[in-house]
Amino acid sequence: MYDTTLRDGAQSEGIAFSVEDKLEILDALDGFGVGFVEGGWPGSNPKDDEFFEKAGERKLKNTELTAFGSTCRHSIDAADDANLKALAACSAEWCCIFGKTWDFQVEVALRIPLEENLRMIEDSVRFLRESGKRVMFDAEHFFDGYKSNQEYALEALGAAVKGGAEWLVLCDTNGGSIPAEVKLATEDVKKTFGDVKVGIHCHNDSELAVANSLAAVEGGAEMVQGTINGIGERCGNANLCSVMANLSLKMGCEICAKDLTGLTELSRFVGEVCNCSPSPGLPYVGEKAFAHKGGMHVSAMAKDSRTYEHITPDTVGNKRRILISDMSGKASIDSKMREFGIDLSDTESREVLNRIKSLEAMGYEFEGADASFELLVRRLKDEWEPPFRVIGFRLFMDDVGDSTMISEASVKVEDFQGNVEHTAADGHGPVNALDNALRKALSRFFPIMEDIRLTDYKVRVLDEKSATAASVRVLIRSTDGKNSWTTVGVSENVIEASMHALVDSIEYAMLKAGDKPKK
Amino acid sequence: MYDTTLRDGAQSEGIAFSVEDKLEILDALDGFGVGFVEGGWPGSNPKDDEFFEKAGERKLKNTELTAFGSTCRHSIDAADDANLKALAACSAEWCCIFGKTWDFQVEVALRIPLEENLRMIEDSVRFLRESGKRVMFDAEHFFDGYKSNQEYALEALGAAVKGGAEWLVLCDTNGGSIPAEVKLATEDVKKTFGDVKVGIHCHNDSELAVANSLAAVEGGAEMVQGTINGIGERCGNANLCSVMANLSLKMGCEICAKDLTGLTELSRFVGEVCNCSPSPGLPYVGEKAFAHKGGMHVSAMAKDSRTYEHITPDTVGNKRRILISDMSGKASIDSKMREFGIDLSDTESREVLNRIKSLEAMGYEFEGADASFELLVRRLKDEWEPPFRVIGFRLFMDDVGDSTMISEASVKVEDFQGNVEHTAADGHGPVNALDNALRKALSRFFPIMEDIRLTDYKVRVLDEKSATAASVRVLIRSTDGKNSWTTVGVSENVIEASMHALVDSIEYAMLKAGDKPKK
Repeated sequence: MYDTTLRDGAQSEGIAFSVEDKLEILDALDGFGVGFVEGGWPGSNPKDDEFFEKAGERKLKNTELTAFGSTCRHSIDAADDANLKALAACSAEWCCIFGKTWDFQVEVALRIPLEENLRMIEDSVRFLRESGKRVMFDAEHFFDGYKSNQEYALEALGAAVKGGAEWLVLCDTNGGSIPAEVKLATEDVKKTFGDVKVGIHCHNDSELAVANSLAAVEGGAEMVQGTINGIGERCGNANLCSVMANLSLKMGCEICAKDLTGLTELSRFVGEVCNCSPSPGLPYVGEKAFAHKGGMHVSAMAKDSRTYEHITPDTVGNKRRILISDMSGKASIDSKMREFGIDLSDTESREVLNRIKSLEAMGYEFEGADASFELLVRRLKDEWEPPFRVIGFRLFMDDVGDSTMISEASVKVEDFQGNVEHTAADGHGPVNALDNALRKALSRFFPIMEDIRLTDYKVRVLDEKSATAASVRVLIRSTDGKNSWTTVGVSENVIEASMHALVDSIEYAMLKAGDKPKK
Repeated sequence: MYDTTLRDGAQSEGIAFSVEDKLEILDALDGFGVGFVEGGWPGSNPKDDEFFEKAGERKLKNTELTAFGSTCRHSIDAADDANLKALAACSAEWCCIFGKTWDFQVEVALRIPLEENLRMIEDSVRFLRESGKRVMFDAEHFFDGYKSNQEYALEALGAAVKGGAEWLVLCDTNGGSIPAEVKLATEDVKKTFGDVKVGIHCHNDSELAVANSLAAVEGGAEMVQGTINGIGERCGNANLCSVMANLSLKMGCEICAKDLTGLTELSRFVGEVCNCSPSPGLPYVGEKAFAHKGGMHVSAMAKDSRTYEHITPDTVGNKRRILISDMSGKASIDSKMREFGIDLSDTESREVLNRIKSLEAMGYEFEGADASFELLVRRLKDEWEPPFRVIGFRLFMDDVGDSTMISEASVKVEDFQGNVEHTAADGHGPVNALDNALRKALSRFFPIMEDIRLTDYKVRVLDEKSATAASVRVLIRSTDGKNSWTTVGVSENVIEASMHALVDSIEYAMLKAGDKPKK
């Protein structure tokens, strides 16, 4: 496993790592057991130089640090190339340099003779070897080159081998190859260069990066390059999370990371550092990867999880989620209660089911709103009494002439001891004004309000026939910095629905923090 | 190509289609040329029944409508099974029913004898055939079954063939298979049942749904089931967008959709109807699929796009995005103008492009809102002057105690002759109050107001980081009984965004009705 989250992953639109971010991710990958981590491109910017300086001081347990770069420029001696000199001087033991192997690229993009490109590859690898580095050669566009001019593509690899490369990494740079091609070409490379190790580097432009990586392994490759969560330019790189799980759990390969139970945590940690949460639908590690909806599926799952799960979620440190919906029955409720740690009698469980059905008829949906669902059950069981009550609120919006629209909210709340706070706030729009006013009022009584913030707000119109008079469902996602939860509110009035979801969100935080003791 | 967006896709967490949504998607898939569209499960809920009733009245050009269901229950005659009777009675020519082919499922989930399961399959298929339907058999968990008890899995397929099934669809229900297994098993099925056509249905739990679909085609499958954008339960279904593009552009297969230039539009349209935008990183159709970050790649691209693109984006109707200096767009503007019947000079076309770019930076998106787009162009060309102007509006909402929340709006409008109307109305929620007041005011001047009504109202929060203070995009769909159109409004304030979309909607109706002559 060769991780390039810190280099190729950083090419992703909207991702910019600080040096500290990169060091944290390096530690996480080392802890997980990834064999190689490509930290960046020394000499290309001060941040990468600082990273290699600091990373060089670390004692890594499992990971070997790798620096990325390119072959020397044409008509220049490798020893005189500033780029290669920076690589030679950096703290990493391994250097991975890319060069052209597609004749079209050499002739059209570089506009140099094919022979000169071979010289650049061989000399660059040799220079790094002679500088004491161990070298991998990233064969850019290898599969396109192999299709266009097979002999030349192999010659380019040969030049790297002559220079002293220990690894040949075949790159599907444009992400346009399909598994059958990848497997055949890899087999050919293994046959041609028996002693040299082979790696694979895929992009996801055809939604085949994971499959192409596996196909290369079937063809003899011994290393897969990729990124955590598949982040990367355009459609991303091969997702190492899925690659590792597939190789280890499906294909019986021995991989460097021995224990996959930290995989989900690794995925979410990297997502957190990137400030872009991993897609909930990510295989193996996503929030939805083991979420079950249909009633039939859930009742079969209760008999044996293999009925609708390809692996058990704890194998990769993920959790099963039973989604509560109008399609679910008693089995779903019961298994959800086990998740919450709540005991329900048969009568109570039926009561909960009936309550859900009547709320769903109104347009509620608890599928994505576990926090509201837990509150509902605890309220029904009389285990929870709200620590505050909204006595009333008013909203005023004004848009006259060309001035910015004004939104003002006033709220009156009462805490469980009868203390009343009546206050007001402005906002960008009515919901924001309401949120601001409610926070302002409650923070007088509840210090926990400081930590809670909303991270997502979604509105769904339910009955489209009546359009603006339709019921709306509002979903609110909140966080206290450590945990996240989702609440739901429904009403004909978007403001009222938002208020329900806001109140649930705050109550849930208080429930979890124990701000108000149970009755 | 067999699309199950409306059935398996609807299993996706957070997706709930209205009947109108489903009909719109059906039309889009038909227009695109998808061979089969699975519309739902007749008899399972009133919405699906209504869908099949209405879909049955449509004249589809390319698509055959399919209804989904299951085999009869055990110990019950197929002819007495309510489920199958609903299928037999529905408007679809084709029925696709699923049954068990994995011995473990039969014995553990159903807890019935293996023989009885074969009886259920054969009888159910035969009953539907005798009711005049053409039948496909969805072999649930086929690949798990094939691994566990190959003989029984094939026997189960044989039962369907005996009953009269024309298609055997091999399902990787848990999404746990890898391409090599899928190919081998498919080849075996083709060899065993030479005359029967074979399909493939994959889930993405191992990030291999697309690759497994292609592997099955290599193994002899003639149909791929999947969903647009890969939506579906857990990690989703095979993404038909990628499957179609790969089969047609990479593997030289002839597929039912002859022209892929509408693929990106189809993906975004379905995303819009689902109210969950497709991931920007989606292969082929995503916003980032052909986005290039500055530097080396861009300068190589300027020489030849093949240097860093596996296909040219226009092949699938997508656009290249150069992230520093955007140079795409003019061609698509021009083609849209031909659609509207508007002539634009080169200068005007550039002006429109600039205006769109600045509006898109604010969060506008015109892909799903042609009416707003047409108004924008006609306003820029000075061909259209609004027949009315909203001078101002106020909203007041009040929720005190347990009484129903009050929403009241006042608006002041002026028509093109300077007549002013100032009025007020109540509503269920602020947007409805505003809509009511605006209609009331305008109907004094414009009789056309009687005919216009809103049929859909959607809100999308744009920047999820800032939650309730984020920008929102409102899409409004309106009808005059004959035609429908969609308009868009964006603002930090949901009320203001709604007002923009409402005003556009009414102006568009007036434009089309010629209520106000052009300048």
